[in-house]
This record gives sequence, structure tokens and C-alpha cells, in this order.
Amino acid sequence: MSRAVAGPEIERLIQLLARLPGLGPRSARRVALHLVKRKDQLLGPLAGAMAEAAAKIVICPECGNVDTIVPCTICQDARRDPSILCVVEEVGDLWALERAAVINARYHVLGGTLSPLDGVGPEDLNIAKLVERARAPEVKEILLALNATVEGQSTAHYLMDRLADCGVTVSRLAHGVPVGGELDYLDEGTLAAAIKARKTL
Amino acid sequence: MSRAVAGPEIERLIQLLARLPGLGPRSARRVALHLVKRKDQLLGPLAGAMAEAAAKIVICPECGNVDTIVPCTICQDARRDPSILCVVEEVGDLWALERAAVINARYHVLGGTLSPLDGVGPEDLNIAKLVERARAPEVKEILLALNATVEGQSTAHYLMDRLADCGVTVSRLAHGVPVGGELDYLDEGTLAAAIKARKTL
Repeated sequence: MSRAVAGPEIERLIQLLARLPGLGPRSARRVALHLVKRKDQLLGPLAGAMAEAAAKIVICPECGNVDTIVPCTICQDARRDPSILCVVEEVGDLWALERAAVINARYHVLGGTLSPLDGVGPEDLNIAKLVERARAPEVKEILLALNATVEGQSTAHYLMDRLADCGVTVSRLAHGVPVGGELDYLDEGTLAAAIKARKTL
Repeated sequence: MSRAVAGPEIERLIQLLARLPGLGPRSARRVALHLVKRKDQLLGPLAGAMAEAAAKIVICPECGNVDTIVPCTICQDARRDPSILCVVEEVGDLWALERAAVINARYHVLGGTLSPLDGVGPEDLNIAKLVERARAPEVKEILLALNATVEGQSTAHYLMDRLADCGVTVSRLAHGVPVGGELDYLDEGTLAAAIKARKTL
């Protein structure tokens, strides 16, 4: 702001809020105003929740998930099928699969994808630990649930090579028409994959 | 989420973030993930800034601005022209005028607009204090810088009546073509106002 309107505390709050994904300077001001107008109902509780999260959050040394206990809730869950490890790029992908509740496996979070142009090599991702976990006798299948992007798929290829001598089946998600999707709006790559993997009725 | 993926601290953080304006459940999760991945650089400092703001923020009893000192920075600023009071709906409007740095007056924040359908009457807004301030001998002009919406304008009409016997000039912002605006994209109301208030060159 060109002139000091509010105290430095509010200015600092706006600056930090502007660093959140999807918020620019304008929406950061709007959020800050929303917060200061709801000091007791929202700003205070949110400050508390953030402080608590900041104090308690740890990265699971086993799978790379974020949680407040070590090992994480999922790694500790005895009802999970120990024979499948589902490899994802980011914790957000893990959350998406858990929301869908479509697999009862444990996970392994890579922390990104290989990207030589950005200087991200195998040693920057959580890959050594994955190979170690894949060698465990109870693990039979590694499901590479990576994004269907160029980066995701090239990372999957690399992992296939790395996991070749671990004595596990390596699988990937199926490609095809998304459920509810209209053919008219799909790209050629998806249509080609859907035709190639067509099912006999 | 259908299953407990992360600890209750993270779930609670997501729930509170989802109550911020412009964030839904999905973007709240994205923000939460962004925060927990940047625990020391962003989550901790933001928690601190919010706690400090929550502890220090007060509504200025004079003008209704939010600040950390009483009276607020603007009310205390001796370089402000004491003869003009600029009436705005919300603190965000005050910030917008201050960013533009186009008026060196003091402000008066109403806290909303009259809206009988929503049960917002004159007693719910910061109007009694405005009338009191308007009667101060140094105040010569009340500039109603309200939104050019139906609610803003009906509130302005109401304030004109209330301020009629305060011995002050009551003014409003000019209507017209926004600077940089193209006629083709303007509504009839704006064009009519711009023609009616046309200036001789």
C-alpha cells in the first residue's frame, strides 16, 4: 500500500497470505479482511490450528506421507493389504486416492517427478526407500499411480527399471475414457489408449 | 474425507481454511498441503502472524477501521484534512481509497449497507456515530463513497436525510466512464450517467 493504513501486523498477515497458492495480493487482502472481521470465530482458531499443525506435523520416514504421528496413520493401519505399495507423486495424490477409497494398500510418496531440466534427479526423490520397501518379503506388487503426464510417465519408466530385480509385479493405472467423460472433448491420446485397451462385452 | 488419512490436526486445518473467502474444500486441501510442505518457511510464520493479529486487532471506536492502535492510524494522523469525512461501506473500500492515495481525509466505515430484506437496519450500521462526528465544528463535508449498487445508493439516500440538519455539505462520488473503459462494454446506466454529467471542453 502506498500509505500506512493499518498496523504492521496486518500488513505482514497480508504478505504471508499472498504466498498461498491461488491467492494474489488482492485476494490476500480480502482474506485478511475476512479474518480480522471474524477475529474470534475464525482468525484465532485458524492461528491455533496452524500453530498446532506446525508443531506436530512430520513426514513419515516410511512412506513420505505427512501426518502427526510416526509412522503415519496409514503405515500403522494393520487392516491395510501389505502386499501392494501404491506409488504416488505427491501427498495430494494420496489424499485423492484415500477420498475415493478405491484401494486398501499402503502408499509411497515420491515427492515429485524426475525432471532433468529442473535439476530433479533420482536422488532428489524418495526412490531409494521405495526400492528398499519393494524388497520386503510381504510386498508383491508396486502400483505406479503417477500422473498421466510426460513427467509422470517418464518417472514410471525409470521406476520400472529400478524395480526390475526386486521380485515384485510392477503395475500402472489404466488409461481410458474418464467415467462421465464425453468422447467429443477427449484428446487423441486418451481415445487411442481407450481403443487399444478395449474390453470385450 | 471418507477415511482418516492424516491426523485430526490437519483435518481441522483444512476445515478452517475452507471457510476463507474464495476457498472451497478442494483448494483448502491444496493450501493445507502447501502449508505443511513449507512448515518452517510459511506455516509457522503465518500461524504467528495470525495469532499476533488476533491478539492486537481492534475496531477503531471513532471511525470503524481495523487497526492495532486506538484510535486508528488514520484517525491519529494529524496531516489529514479534518474538514472531510469519507464514508465507506467496508474497511476494504477504505484500503482501496488509501492505495489510490486520492484523498487525504479521515474515514467512516459503515460496516455494510441498509438491507431491509436481510434485516439490516440503520441501528445495525455505524450510523449514529457518523451523525455525531458530522456535527463536530471542524467537519464541513461528508463524502459518501459508497458502492454504485442499489444497496449502496439507497443507503446514501438514507444518510443524506439523516445528515440534512448537521450543517455539512453531503457529496457523493461522480458516476461516469471508468478511466480506461470502453464504451462498448459499459451498461446503459453508466452511459446515461456519463452523458448527463458531461463536461464542456
